[in-house]
Amino acid sequence: MYRSHTCGELRIASIGEEVTLAGWVQKIRNKGFMIWVDLRDRYGVTQLIFDEERTSEKMMKETANLGREFVIQVKGTVIERESKNPQMPTGDIEILVSDYKLLNASLTPPFTIENDTDGGEELRMKYRYLDIRRNPVKENLMFRHKVGMQVRNYLSNQGFIEVETPYLIKSTPEGARDFVVPSRMNEGQFYALPQSPQTFKQLLMVGGMDKYFQIVKCFRDEDLRADRQPEFTQIDCEMAFVDQEDILNIFEGFTIHLLKEIKGVESVNFPRMTYAEAIQKYGNDKPDIRFGMEFAELNELAKHKGFNVFDQQELIVGIAVPGAAAYTRKEIDALIEWVKRPQVGATGLVWARYNEDKTLKSSVDTFYTAEDLKEWANATGANPGDLILVMGGNANATRAQLSALRMHLATQLGLRDPNVFAPLWVVDFPLLEWDEETSRYHAMHHPFTSPKPEDIALLETDPGAVRANAYDLVLNGNEIGGGSIRIHDKATQAKMFDYLGFTPEQAREQFGFLMNAFEYGAPPHGGIAFGFDRLVSILGGQETIRDFIAFPKNNNGRDVMIDAPAKLDEEQLKELHLQVKL
Amino acid sequence: MYRSHTCGELRIASIGEEVTLAGWVQKIRNKGFMIWVDLRDRYGVTQLIFDEERTSEKMMKETANLGREFVIQVKGTVIERESKNPQMPTGDIEILVSDYKLLNASLTPPFTIENDTDGGEELRMKYRYLDIRRNPVKENLMFRHKVGMQVRNYLSNQGFIEVETPYLIKSTPEGARDFVVPSRMNEGQFYALPQSPQTFKQLLMVGGMDKYFQIVKCFRDEDLRADRQPEFTQIDCEMAFVDQEDILNIFEGFTIHLLKEIKGVESVNFPRMTYAEAIQKYGNDKPDIRFGMEFAELNELAKHKGFNVFDQQELIVGIAVPGAAAYTRKEIDALIEWVKRPQVGATGLVWARYNEDKTLKSSVDTFYTAEDLKEWANATGANPGDLILVMGGNANATRAQLSALRMHLATQLGLRDPNVFAPLWVVDFPLLEWDEETSRYHAMHHPFTSPKPEDIALLETDPGAVRANAYDLVLNGNEIGGGSIRIHDKATQAKMFDYLGFTPEQAREQFGFLMNAFEYGAPPHGGIAFGFDRLVSILGGQETIRDFIAFPKNNNGRDVMIDAPAKLDEEQLKELHLQVKL
Repeated sequence: MYRSHTCGELRIASIGEEVTLAGWVQKIRNKGFMIWVDLRDRYGVTQLIFDEERTSEKMMKETANLGREFVIQVKGTVIERESKNPQMPTGDIEILVSDYKLLNASLTPPFTIENDTDGGEELRMKYRYLDIRRNPVKENLMFRHKVGMQVRNYLSNQGFIEVETPYLIKSTPEGARDFVVPSRMNEGQFYALPQSPQTFKQLLMVGGMDKYFQIVKCFRDEDLRADRQPEFTQIDCEMAFVDQEDILNIFEGFTIHLLKEIKGVESVNFPRMTYAEAIQKYGNDKPDIRFGMEFAELNELAKHKGFNVFDQQELIVGIAVPGAAAYTRKEIDALIEWVKRPQVGATGLVWARYNEDKTLKSSVDTFYTAEDLKEWANATGANPGDLILVMGGNANATRAQLSALRMHLATQLGLRDPNVFAPLWVVDFPLLEWDEETSRYHAMHHPFTSPKPEDIALLETDPGAVRANAYDLVLNGNEIGGGSIRIHDKATQAKMFDYLGFTPEQAREQFGFLMNAFEYGAPPHGGIAFGFDRLVSILGGQETIRDFIAFPKNNNGRDVMIDAPAKLDEEQLKELHLQVKL
Repeated sequence: MYRSHTCGELRIASIGEEVTLAGWVQKIRNKGFMIWVDLRDRYGVTQLIFDEERTSEKMMKETANLGREFVIQVKGTVIERESKNPQMPTGDIEILVSDYKLLNASLTPPFTIENDTDGGEELRMKYRYLDIRRNPVKENLMFRHKVGMQVRNYLSNQGFIEVETPYLIKSTPEGARDFVVPSRMNEGQFYALPQSPQTFKQLLMVGGMDKYFQIVKCFRDEDLRADRQPEFTQIDCEMAFVDQEDILNIFEGFTIHLLKEIKGVESVNFPRMTYAEAIQKYGNDKPDIRFGMEFAELNELAKHKGFNVFDQQELIVGIAVPGAAAYTRKEIDALIEWVKRPQVGATGLVWARYNEDKTLKSSVDTFYTAEDLKEWANATGANPGDLILVMGGNANATRAQLSALRMHLATQLGLRDPNVFAPLWVVDFPLLEWDEETSRYHAMHHPFTSPKPEDIALLETDPGAVRANAYDLVLNGNEIGGGSIRIHDKATQAKMFDYLGFTPEQAREQFGFLMNAFEYGAPPHGGIAFGFDRLVSILGGQETIRDFIAFPKNNNGRDVMIDAPAKLDEEQLKELHLQVKL
């Protein structure tokens, strides 16, 4: 036994006990006649004391030579601390060390192992095993475990069965790029790593498993954007004999359970909103509804008043920014610059201050009367003291730009409180979306998503208007889950493949097993999948998923700690029947 | 809502209730004036009744046309059954159907969806989604889930944190062949899929996580033997500040917990045995100790008695087979033939009947006196009525052969009761094993295993005799887990790599990150990993892991259901900078 107690465990009640602790040297204070060492392990920090009266000369010397992050084992007596530290759970006591053993030395770490470290991101990734020693990272990983346990126990208690689906599957041309795995035994052939267990969970429903879930790694070979990982974790769920309402209810319960158990949130509003409404009100299919600033469409009020810039635009849309009438001209100019950034891409921004005295002052006073501006205020719901911001242009682009601005302002105004949780179902997603590049419709969710029965006729006449039985779970402006009711009859599925541009041969080759399965009594079914990394980071009140992944990859898909990927030797390539061609 | 109840739920107390059920048609009995349908879902079977007095003519006709595995939804009244079926939980009631809806039709399934199906293995794999509808397969998957939940909850309650380690890692030449994943973004480079998270769990210990576990997929590109899968699931555990005794104690508790919760086993003996003792007593490092038949070494008693065949052999070893003195000559000849099979490879088998009347009759009566044979009986622990079987030859080969025969006989005699559980720790494994092919020592466990401190000196003089702090958990003759205390200082690790034939450059290239990590205060640590597929199948009282995997691969590593692996198109290969060379 290396220790009798952990470094987070001892309290005043243990005074007089002989204990053994083991851990890392966090800090040393050496006053010559007295040395204090903070000893750290996963559970906390305990102060050790050595002094020249009670400690041998040899041990005093050895202790003075200890460095940060050395691993030691100490025996000693729990004594009461003279100057107690109420910030530390163990702050009432210290250990008067009678014996100790150096378990391992340490080089000086490349960054400080403190809550606020001096290490940059790249360095911390390279020495991730040291980064994990820091409380914030360690606690994130423990938090992730806690969320995972809650997820599993809740779903299991609801009758869901976790079934492991295979990782070595088959590449399909649909969706993102697959990572592939060459087969040595089947020459010239490849497995693919799953982008999601989609078809397997549907096959489990055909197989009668009824309620399935899995916390599972998924893989997408995409050009990485910030905060995307080539491998990510999904909470994957599927149910048979359900319609959309059943799934929304079950996973509302699931989300409420997590918010309660993990965050102590006692009561949660769980509104639903159609996709069309979300786009119209927030310019976005994953609106953050912790705050207002809803969009007001101003075409009627802003066009043909002499301000030519607006006259030709498809959409004029505005928001009221609470309390921002007090923004200085400089602050407003900063917003105008902000929306012109390439990431947003707007050309301009019209503003009107709705002053506390109810007067209105705008950047377009030449064209709009006080009455006109008052109508803008009414439409946007502005109160005296608010700032009205208006943009115009192509409807889709303008909505996206104003949505970005809305989020930027909310952050700036402190309206995105990480301790407030506002979940939302966005429903009735379009089934298809038009792809300019290939000049055809693509499945917005995936090709297994069921159209709404009442919209099926529109497939022939107005495909873009067909709504799907598809839904997203949005939390604080992030899509944390998405799913759909699936097609479960072969004829509709074949039609959908046809519609999406698959030849019957391609459909058979890629999804023949699913089409076959549908011939043998497939039940109605549907499901949802949650991005586990994202869910954990939002519940943890943080923005980046990387902070909740033990060993993340960088934006080039590299693991800089183990230096992967790497070259293979020729022998290995030969066994795999492969040649690299650069 | 597709249903008010499941098909396994209704009992006599519900008589008179209006219910809605949905499921698959398991069976139809049509007597013309009356039709019974067994409706099945995940939860059970409920009998539906239609009769010409109470059911419309139209519905009678439609029902008569239902086929097996059609999916229907029915509404009806719960009524008491005339002839109750005590075998069925719902056997007291049936549903008088008032309305129903065909949810999906089914082709005639290629095999019967019954507990005892007429489908062969290959066919059932191809239509695995139908196979899963059968109770035995469905129950195996649910059993696996139950074991998984118990594992997670137990370990979590013991303070272990589940941490997900990456799947896209780096290929290493050690151990079995890696599956590799070409990187598109890092041209000409490859990730590897983990054979186990070994180095990552060690890095988590360096990172202070203290107690880690993970239920995780692992991958090995081996030529498949029966009941091996290229992807398999491991319960992977690691602890810091522990010695071997701590780990054995914790995972004894873990195993006892599982046996109790899963199998209702109340008291478990948990003996320990050294590797040397296991080999000597059972010829095997994973002995099944549910029965005796321990080996007796007979060199002293069997050599130089005139039976020349034995005189030159390294080892003469025998077992007493309980009650087998009554075996006929034909039965004994069958055993002699059995050991000559290529899989066993023995050249012969000497036998001696220890008759109930205490006389002894052997195949070598010409060479051994009754007294000689009596000594064999004493040595093997034979009682009157037992059969003594003796083999001689090279020690290793002979032990393996007799071990195979011992297991064969135990199965034949019904001594391997799947409801009896006999766990065992085998400890003190050799650190190294000699590999004839490469003429050098290999790590028996893996290169991170710590030698026993007291044996380190032997590394120079007698490497094969060095014992490791390595242990296996054996259950009913199967290795279900194995682990070791790891090396945690850089010097020893470097020495070990050197010893195993790595150049310093190779060691640095492959394991540099681990060696680096050891420079920064690595704590003493060790762990264990369990084969989850194997553990579940043994707890389930069955022999093959494939029955506990939802979508297993065949012996060629193929998924015959989805037909993977498969060829990639040229475009995809080009993006990956690869060319196939057959």
